[in-house]
Amino acid sequence: MFLIEGEHLIEEAYKAGLLKTIFFVNNNPYFDIENYQVSEQVISKLSSVKNNQGIVGICSMKANFDLSNKILLLDHIQDPGNMGTLIRSAIAFGFNTIVLDECVDVYNPKVVRSTQGALFKIHLIEKNIVDFIKEYNDYYYLATNLSSSNNLSDLKIQKDKIGLILGNEGQGVRDKLIDLANIDFKIEMKSMESLNVSIAGSIIMHKLN
Amino acid sequence: MFLIEGEHLIEEAYKAGLLKTIFFVNNNPYFDIENYQVSEQVISKLSSVKNNQGIVGICSMKANFDLSNKILLLDHIQDPGNMGTLIRSAIAFGFNTIVLDECVDVYNPKVVRSTQGALFKIHLIEKNIVDFIKEYNDYYYLATNLSSSNNLSDLKIQKDKIGLILGNEGQGVRDKLIDLANIDFKIEMKSMESLNVSIAGSIIMHKLN
Repeated sequence: MFLIEGEHLIEEAYKAGLLKTIFFVNNNPYFDIENYQVSEQVISKLSSVKNNQGIVGICSMKANFDLSNKILLLDHIQDPGNMGTLIRSAIAFGFNTIVLDECVDVYNPKVVRSTQGALFKIHLIEKNIVDFIKEYNDYYYLATNLSSSNNLSDLKIQKDKIGLILGNEGQGVRDKLIDLANIDFKIEMKSMESLNVSIAGSIIMHKLN
Repeated sequence: MFLIEGEHLIEEAYKAGLLKTIFFVNNNPYFDIENYQVSEQVISKLSSVKNNQGIVGICSMKANFDLSNKILLLDHIQDPGNMGTLIRSAIAFGFNTIVLDECVDVYNPKVVRSTQGALFKIHLIEKNIVDFIKEYNDYYYLATNLSSSNNLSDLKIQKDKIGLILGNEGQGVRDKLIDLANIDFKIEMKSMESLNVSIAGSIIMHKLN
């Protein structure tokens, strides 16, 4: 279970059937679930933001379901904003299962806020990526690698089941995962810039969509 | 002129020939430009972050040069993080000129930090987008529009000169700009999510690259 706040997020959790309890100061739109009217002091204590909206909910994590045909595998992603953005893009482009290997806590309030509700639609699995690849060897795994000779634009992937591996903000995907993957590639760029992992990941998921 | 800080940013500004003056507490790597050793109190006053790196520079804005063949036109972008990311992706994908119409100040310290040095390579023009399109009518203009029937993946743009119009975080591209553009389009998604403008813009610039 984890805390959520903000009207939009709470509405999304409610629609997904994951909202279990509500604490509110003035208005409670959800009388069909357990609810408590509380003081502003209580809400301030529960809230993680300066200007809260006077409503906080307790939400259950999404129950497990089948693996999607497209899977995102995240190797040591540490920044809450990147995690939130990646979850949002994953849902947008059909990567409905995410494997998390030593990543930032996805129930961290910053991550929850930045997913904009996508957290309630995604299937999250905490697992070592090496073990995952060995167990699910019917997927075709792609790993990003800045020194790869393959370019994203040239990839022609005709596979039903694919797993995209993205790596840590500073180090990228670990070498042993690049070796385990079926192919590695980079995003070709005009200039020597590197892209933030959430931007790179979104570009790739759109392309593989 | 504007202030920059952090060793990486200052080095990028120096390499671009835009660093004019340095204020430092302990170490100054750039003795060939105007420099002043100052106290920590002075640096703290100049810095916009809590834990500064003891070095702040004054930087000049990039002088104007020719319009690039790919141009990014930003309509009322307000978030500093989005602006920084868009500048970085623009440089990565060859959109070397950006037209700014009523956007957040690009010399805002948050924008400067999040561009990671891309700010020193980009050609920025503050101008009304309607006026710009009328003046530069040899470009082919594309505008994002969530209710468009054209999908990004289906676009086949065979033009040398293109201008991509992205809009405000809440409102999107204004209708009059969509009408003025040669084509409008949306990014197709599996789910009803909307994408952050910096994510959407990066996906589109990669595709048009």
